[in-house]
Amino acid sequence: MSFEEIGTENAYKVLAPRPTIIVTTINRKGEVNAAPFSFTMPVSMDPPLIAFASVASHHTYKNIVEVDEFVVNIPKEDILNKLWITGEKFPYGVNEIEKAGLTSKPSKKVSPPGIEECVACIECKVHWIKNAGDHNIIVGEVLNVSAKEDSLKGGNLDVEKIKPVLHVGGVNFVVGDHLKKVE
Amino acid sequence: MSFEEIGTENAYKVLAPRPTIIVTTINRKGEVNAAPFSFTMPVSMDPPLIAFASVASHHTYKNIVEVDEFVVNIPKEDILNKLWITGEKFPYGVNEIEKAGLTSKPSKKVSPPGIEECVACIECKVHWIKNAGDHNIIVGEVLNVSAKEDSLKGGNLDVEKIKPVLHVGGVNFVVGDHLKKVE
Repeated sequence: MSFEEIGTENAYKVLAPRPTIIVTTINRKGEVNAAPFSFTMPVSMDPPLIAFASVASHHTYKNIVEVDEFVVNIPKEDILNKLWITGEKFPYGVNEIEKAGLTSKPSKKVSPPGIEECVACIECKVHWIKNAGDHNIIVGEVLNVSAKEDSLKGGNLDVEKIKPVLHVGGVNFVVGDHLKKVE
Repeated sequence: MSFEEIGTENAYKVLAPRPTIIVTTINRKGEVNAAPFSFTMPVSMDPPLIAFASVASHHTYKNIVEVDEFVVNIPKEDILNKLWITGEKFPYGVNEIEKAGLTSKPSKKVSPPGIEECVACIECKVHWIKNAGDHNIIVGEVLNVSAKEDSLKGGNLDVEKIKPVLHVGGVNFVVGDHLKKVE
């Protein structure tokens, strides 16, 4: 089968499927925000750093500029529809954890809460932020990682059991070997 | 099920599974290098930017410092073992595409070749590089994207057909809903 050019704007569509995360933040007033992202990656082991990319207009980004902490929550299949609700455009200050019917979980080392229904919560403090095109890359230093006891196997995420939610593009996700659309 | 703390060094193990890529580069002498990575993400739409993280001692990183171009190749299940060979420690200057029994494919906009057996090739020129802990984040501007004609569906990667190779950690990958170890 031969290659065809598909346009540079489609690069993110082939760099897929990607782990979906829900990032939780707070603003100066302590109001909680939660939103899904899939432009994310681990970066460094020592010190432990992870990164994600956000547009500057996003509530998550605004909050991180105000309070330089965030939690990266790893969802699984059973909360895919709730995850999608956290991605809806609510007014600034609305708590998407509550709107989605999810449960806040106090963090250990940072102010923003984690999400109880996720399999793991990575608590981060901003290490650096740098603009990259129409997004900003936020690198966070990992201060604490907690995971559900039954979600790991041999030190790794037990992917056969957990069936993480991977993002393909738009409403399209992959769970296990099946495509799943949210509506 | 309750959460347990698993150590900050394990953050990358829960931020998983991740798309596996093979990055191809050349050095000043034109010698080709290929190596697998899974710390990667899309970053920006306009301009189109993608990123990956590499340690400074890696041949890929050395080459990118010499010739500021690279190709991100998206592998699929049938070349998982060959992908693993590209990750072996060969002396500097050795062409891992040849060592793995893969085939070079001329790129359109950059000097390093792509890999014929992959489903897509994203040709990039360095946009910026910034240190982040024990890795460097390399952001590339996407100059060309080519994909196998049968690998897309509705504009997205046809994940049910292609079964991309996702990295969990170490020798552990996910293909579809099954864990697969390379040996």
